[in-house]
Amino acid sequence: VIAGGLHVISVADGNVTALAEPEHDAITYGLADFIAAEELERFRGHWWSPDSDAVLMERVDVSPVPHWWISDPAKPGNEPTAHRYPAAGTTNAELGLVLVRLDGTRTEITWDRGRFEYLVTVGWQSGHAPLLTVMSRDQRHQQVVEVDTATGHTRVLHERSDAAWVEWITGLPRWMGSELLVHHDDLVEDTRRVVAVRDGQERALTPTGLQIGAVLDVDDASETLLVQATDDATRTAVYRVRHGQADTVGTLPHAWQMGFAGGALADDTLVVMASDLDQWRAEWVVLRGDAPVGVLATHAATPDLASPAVRPRVHMHQVGQRGLNIALLFPENHVAGTRLPVLMNPYGGPHHREVIRVGHLFSEDQFLANQGFAVVIVDGRGTPMRGPTWDRAIHGDLLAPVLEDQVAGLHAAAALYPDLDLTRVGIRGWSFGGYLSAAAVMVRPDVFHVGIAGAPVTDWRLYDTGYTERYLGHPETSPESYARTDLTTVADRLQRPLMLIHGLADDNVVAAHTLTLSSALLAAGKPHTVLPLSGVTHMTPQEIVTENLLRIQVQYLHEHLSR
Amino acid sequence: VIAGGLHVISVADGNVTALAEPEHDAITYGLADFIAAEELERFRGHWWSPDSDAVLMERVDVSPVPHWWISDPAKPGNEPTAHRYPAAGTTNAELGLVLVRLDGTRTEITWDRGRFEYLVTVGWQSGHAPLLTVMSRDQRHQQVVEVDTATGHTRVLHERSDAAWVEWITGLPRWMGSELLVHHDDLVEDTRRVVAVRDGQERALTPTGLQIGAVLDVDDASETLLVQATDDATRTAVYRVRHGQADTVGTLPHAWQMGFAGGALADDTLVVMASDLDQWRAEWVVLRGDAPVGVLATHAATPDLASPAVRPRVHMHQVGQRGLNIALLFPENHVAGTRLPVLMNPYGGPHHREVIRVGHLFSEDQFLANQGFAVVIVDGRGTPMRGPTWDRAIHGDLLAPVLEDQVAGLHAAAALYPDLDLTRVGIRGWSFGGYLSAAAVMVRPDVFHVGIAGAPVTDWRLYDTGYTERYLGHPETSPESYARTDLTTVADRLQRPLMLIHGLADDNVVAAHTLTLSSALLAAGKPHTVLPLSGVTHMTPQEIVTENLLRIQVQYLHEHLSR
Repeated sequence: VIAGGLHVISVADGNVTALAEPEHDAITYGLADFIAAEELERFRGHWWSPDSDAVLMERVDVSPVPHWWISDPAKPGNEPTAHRYPAAGTTNAELGLVLVRLDGTRTEITWDRGRFEYLVTVGWQSGHAPLLTVMSRDQRHQQVVEVDTATGHTRVLHERSDAAWVEWITGLPRWMGSELLVHHDDLVEDTRRVVAVRDGQERALTPTGLQIGAVLDVDDASETLLVQATDDATRTAVYRVRHGQADTVGTLPHAWQMGFAGGALADDTLVVMASDLDQWRAEWVVLRGDAPVGVLATHAATPDLASPAVRPRVHMHQVGQRGLNIALLFPENHVAGTRLPVLMNPYGGPHHREVIRVGHLFSEDQFLANQGFAVVIVDGRGTPMRGPTWDRAIHGDLLAPVLEDQVAGLHAAAALYPDLDLTRVGIRGWSFGGYLSAAAVMVRPDVFHVGIAGAPVTDWRLYDTGYTERYLGHPETSPESYARTDLTTVADRLQRPLMLIHGLADDNVVAAHTLTLSSALLAAGKPHTVLPLSGVTHMTPQEIVTENLLRIQVQYLHEHLSR
Repeated sequence: VIAGGLHVISVADGNVTALAEPEHDAITYGLADFIAAEELERFRGHWWSPDSDAVLMERVDVSPVPHWWISDPAKPGNEPTAHRYPAAGTTNAELGLVLVRLDGTRTEITWDRGRFEYLVTVGWQSGHAPLLTVMSRDQRHQQVVEVDTATGHTRVLHERSDAAWVEWITGLPRWMGSELLVHHDDLVEDTRRVVAVRDGQERALTPTGLQIGAVLDVDDASETLLVQATDDATRTAVYRVRHGQADTVGTLPHAWQMGFAGGALADDTLVVMASDLDQWRAEWVVLRGDAPVGVLATHAATPDLASPAVRPRVHMHQVGQRGLNIALLFPENHVAGTRLPVLMNPYGGPHHREVIRVGHLFSEDQFLANQGFAVVIVDGRGTPMRGPTWDRAIHGDLLAPVLEDQVAGLHAAAALYPDLDLTRVGIRGWSFGGYLSAAAVMVRPDVFHVGIAGAPVTDWRLYDTGYTERYLGHPETSPESYARTDLTTVADRLQRPLMLIHGLADDNVVAAHTLTLSSALLAAGKPHTVLPLSGVTHMTPQEIVTENLLRIQVQYLHEHLSR
């Protein structure tokens, strides 16, 4: 039983026994550390043994992490909350792993923590020792290690390095069958592949050009992997990969190779989720072997979904020298030949795509288009599923290549659709997209005429270790990477209308980003607009806030893009 | 010796003795309490005995006052500061007075603190017992009491009451001559007068119609008072008032009856400071009897003052049914017949005038006028020096009469000067003026086309006890006064551009005012602009901030007042 991540207790014969108790307030057992959950897609901090007689638990001590305060200046009587934030260049939490047995005995797991301070993955399969992936602070080195549960010692099974950074794949590494270690590789033929090792021999399970996103499920008996993968970043399909039969990739009916797909596998039964650009919502289909045998009905009481306010009509293209994926949406009542102001609505940062063939993801874009804009979305260098080189094109510079691709995508879109009026171009985005939007109006006023930046990063020194150092290095050893991407240093270049929106309770991209940029703009005598959102965190799940924010943004865009 | 307001020590014969030590961290000795310094114009918290053998000290215990936090969200690593803020309706600090003698003995001064929780004035003149003015929480009752320094007991000498609130005059009450108690009165013929009591007989020392601002000095030998007073709120003169000779008021040469005046008196020597509308700076003139005998030279190294960037040319008028005092400034290069957008630049709240005959106070206004505006400033009901009824016209409503007078003043100005274009009217102000400016665009869009509110109050519940309860009463017993003056309740009426500017470190009008209004506007889907000033308090003494803020405001006004 995990109680609040603080106490791990055993209830047996009416007795409650604490199996793990934090030694002090800054320690948790059984919860993922902040960087794992925020930047490594690991949300779990405890793993039961296959025999259910022990729990492997992450132990996190945040004492070395500097305090940051989140306050609610709209409610001055509310005491500010101190939390530990590992900003780039500062000290991370100290991580450990402890094996706690229900009999009360306890073994600490050891690895070379001096060299490998991140714990990326933990897995514990029946009949095997636990497998860990640990990673160095500079994220250029990983080790896959095997745990001796008796002693807590670990043995290195595999090491990988990368001059930029090492990635990971959810679901890997793992054992398959009896002695086959399955992990991934980024270094050959610009492909993120699944590879397997047996008796020291490594072999690719997936072909060149097919980029692997995640391992969804595994059938050990048949040594079959179910993977999300694609050779076209606008789609993600489900593939069944049978060991030794790399050529069986893609045996699923083409219908399941769609915009986004998930699935689960057991023996020869397969359930896949599939979405496509013209589908309003995902479908869950059951297959036996390769034959569909049924569809899982959706009973959700979602009248809005049944009769959505907008039905996105999305045009997708691959454009320009780099083959950028772009999406375009026009007002539903658009008459060809009518020139439209353009609204770019990017994310643009690593680990997230926008231009994928899932219709309902474009609802907001269609709403915005219906307000009288040609909405253009570009996934440029750094966005995922186009291979290791594409991923790493932003190493050392999260700004210039990203912005360059937005501009190239815009110009290519205008070449395809002459209705796009390049004399009236706005850009808006949230989080990384906010960073990109603020940067766009500041450094490319020749292209962008108004910008709206929601919860933007403005100075990467204020963002966390795990994400920031991966792309920009350590602030002390790579100060130039931080300087060239710091928006406060180009404040004096702003000559276009810029609206900054930020939740004052944001504990991820803190409001200091927006306030620091706003101060720099003020010091440079540059007018701009700020909307501080009281009590709002990094996202705005509050329906009323979301709706009104959209309306206010639309008015701001109209005001500054009207002829 | 007062050390940091915390320890009162005596240094004698090489020994340091603590005469008063705070019993705990929330206690100070010898410093004025927050409300006294902020709202009662009493900045002093210790008073030496005329014989220099004892100190009367204010003792302040802020433990009952709720904590508010001031943070710097631009620097999340800086720990927020807790301070005690007595917001309207909450508990005030507990005040006491202690007489500490240099021989180490100590006497606590007692009065009816249950009924009179404010300590308004303290004075201790040679040959007399200390005099205090204490005031009830609702500010409708004051007592002048005399202290028996041997026992600490007090005896009531005078009581005054007012259905709205009781005022005070700096420098009073005091003894004059041997047995004459001089204090003030607001209740007869709409005049704030100086009155004297001898043997239970009260008599006015100043005539009907002359409003007294402050007692500057007293010559006890000749029983002469030097007072600031006026019968025209655009001027404040220095008057010598000789006891029993009320008709001697105004014996100073008319030249000293100017925009603003201060002075000091000793025997027959008088020093007066005088400013006027066409004077760039104040002059200090020495008189013997009534004859000027010299001018005090100014040696300040102020090249900016010697050669100012702007030379204000101010037009003043008394207009409309109420005889509102207004000031107008035109661009220096204005050609009559050219229509100009109007910029109102009010304060408008109690206890502060703008329309006074002191030229250099209009430097900012002239700068603004030079940017292409007709600047109009109106002192309406509630502003000081026009008598008790005028002062109290805002009782229970700090908004409607104030705003009504701004509109009336504007329309009267336009009737006098047809160059004023009433289709293009902006309004800007700071503090109360910010409140007024925000209110103006929200509730009178027919008159005002753009507003800029700096450090505004938006909800009086968030302002302090001392000021707010005087004008609006206690929030629990007068909720309607708070409701009718609360700008957040009219957020849905905004249809004009509104810029809110607020220092996030403001510990007087806290940023919560702006953030609360901004949230209400967002909830109502109303676009607006916020400029949060990181690290800035209620005023912006930083030259760079002030300059850039002005530039940004001018750009905003031009943008929204251009044809």
